[in-house]
Amino acid sequence: MRIIFDGFGGDNAPLSVIEGCALAVKELGADIILTGDEKKIAATAEEHGISLAGIQIVHAPDVIPMEEEPTQLLKTYQNSSMAVGFRLLADGAGSAIVTAGSTGAAVVGANLIVKRIRGIKRCAIGTVIPSPETGGSYMLIDSGANSECRPEMLRQFGLMGSVYMERIEGVQAPRVGLVNIGTEESKGRDLQRETFTLLQGSELNFIGNVEAREVPLGGCDVAVCDGFTGNVMLKLIEGMAKMFSHQLKGMLLHSFGTKIAALLLKDQISAFKKIFDSNERGGALMLGARRPVIKVHGNANALAVKNGIAQAMSCCENGVVEEITRALTEIADAGQKPEQDTAD
Amino acid sequence: MRIIFDGFGGDNAPLSVIEGCALAVKELGADIILTGDEKKIAATAEEHGISLAGIQIVHAPDVIPMEEEPTQLLKTYQNSSMAVGFRLLADGAGSAIVTAGSTGAAVVGANLIVKRIRGIKRCAIGTVIPSPETGGSYMLIDSGANSECRPEMLRQFGLMGSVYMERIEGVQAPRVGLVNIGTEESKGRDLQRETFTLLQGSELNFIGNVEAREVPLGGCDVAVCDGFTGNVMLKLIEGMAKMFSHQLKGMLLHSFGTKIAALLLKDQISAFKKIFDSNERGGALMLGARRPVIKVHGNANALAVKNGIAQAMSCCENGVVEEITRALTEIADAGQKPEQDTAD
Repeated sequence: MRIIFDGFGGDNAPLSVIEGCALAVKELGADIILTGDEKKIAATAEEHGISLAGIQIVHAPDVIPMEEEPTQLLKTYQNSSMAVGFRLLADGAGSAIVTAGSTGAAVVGANLIVKRIRGIKRCAIGTVIPSPETGGSYMLIDSGANSECRPEMLRQFGLMGSVYMERIEGVQAPRVGLVNIGTEESKGRDLQRETFTLLQGSELNFIGNVEAREVPLGGCDVAVCDGFTGNVMLKLIEGMAKMFSHQLKGMLLHSFGTKIAALLLKDQISAFKKIFDSNERGGALMLGARRPVIKVHGNANALAVKNGIAQAMSCCENGVVEEITRALTEIADAGQKPEQDTAD
Repeated sequence: MRIIFDGFGGDNAPLSVIEGCALAVKELGADIILTGDEKKIAATAEEHGISLAGIQIVHAPDVIPMEEEPTQLLKTYQNSSMAVGFRLLADGAGSAIVTAGSTGAAVVGANLIVKRIRGIKRCAIGTVIPSPETGGSYMLIDSGANSECRPEMLRQFGLMGSVYMERIEGVQAPRVGLVNIGTEESKGRDLQRETFTLLQGSELNFIGNVEAREVPLGGCDVAVCDGFTGNVMLKLIEGMAKMFSHQLKGMLLHSFGTKIAALLLKDQISAFKKIFDSNERGGALMLGARRPVIKVHGNANALAVKNGIAQAMSCCENGVVEEITRALTEIADAGQKPEQDTAD
């Protein structure tokens, strides 16, 4: 099992990426292909005394900028570290890819270079979010790949999220909830009403509509929604966490007395911060692609890079793609044939 | 100026409503019409020794249940305390209405009994949310009345929110942001792209797209979105606040040392809680109706009832409806004639 890493994606590339890959080789026994400008990689590794043992470098001269139009991955930036990485994955040179680069470009790479599992309408971004109330986590899917969705897509998001939460997070019969503005079946737009019917008739453990209030409180294990709603939710969760963290800091720095309180709460606060520190976890999944595609955040440090690689290895070892494929085949065999895949 | 209060809306009616109305008479010099079963109101007031001076009771025998189909306000529940209140407002017996009852029914009452300001396509729910980062607040509009919206509706939500934030919250030239999944003009669905163009060409202080991450951090004064997105955001904000509040409590109760920290932080925590206590504020506005319609939360206590009345009085005194009407007329005069109002 070889994991491909996009060497020049994200704000801290290539240094954090090289550090993280070296850490993954040492701690996880990972076997890595690193894409990017080979001279720069070699120079950075040498300058910082990082061993490149266990890391094969595949040269890619360009870098696709974060703000670039995602489809440019297939045109102007064909020789970027990300595009080269995706092509290596599509060609079978590696088992999974991890990138800290542009999310939009990674979605394009997953859909159009690695390509989708047969029967999957669109790749979706599944983000695993900690739920301190339950001590576990939940997946928000789609958290941004598809602004416009059809009911069949949402049903597939539910299936893919279930497989991931069961296989990787160890949740038995994950509770799939449809994000909606009320719990009654009649609530929402046509999309929600039609998806409700589809999910109810599916093999999933569908618990019905969930209101957004219940999602951070652990109301479901897989929160299914279109990518517009999911992206708004993901970013609002980030903003709220930032706001509360600021406010807590303000409270603790208020006076001499509160500074003493801060000392007394030190361990609790650092444990809480750790729950929400994205470096401590892996990245978001581009579920639906033929091989695992993982996006770690743009500001990933070496720890986040290593954790992304660990997650990629876990996806391969636990057969996430194979399990999604098997589930789709079972549905097809049971006569619930998925709609014909559209060419795009 | 007389304020109509729906005497039997919400979980704590009629007791909290009567207490709150009495408080408003005493502290604000309010003049109130209270709708509902007059015998029950009189008995409750007598039982709890509450004076009904300054409160005129208009009999309404029924109560529309929270979970009832909203349009039943016009049919089975025509004689409910809410329907009677809305008809009194439409007939000019009062200047504004406040209810703690079903939000959906209040939307129906605003649109179809009080009716809309000429040119307004749909009433929207505007919710004022505190922003501790700025010390102020922002309005989320539409936070749930209209799941499906057209661009022209969103432009009007921006206008109505601006008028409210300027007149009532005292924000100069409120910054109107369009909730979207990226800041670039090209982001989002057709709805967002078309609304962007409309808002850019408007008289409002449009600052462009805002990502949901920036909203709780004070990124704009009026956050414009469709009612599906807004309702998801509103409820997610509530859920996140609840989750953080639980977690903070857990931290503070962890051990002897953290309990001492809790004592040292007592004032800071209670000040922070107060910011997010909805009883301390007024309610949500049904903006676009010909007279102010305010919805306080279903669990409103006497303080929340009094604050809702204060907000209704402030809307009347500061001419929120008149200012929205004037702004619409100016737009029409400037040749930006709003689309013909649809009959529904």
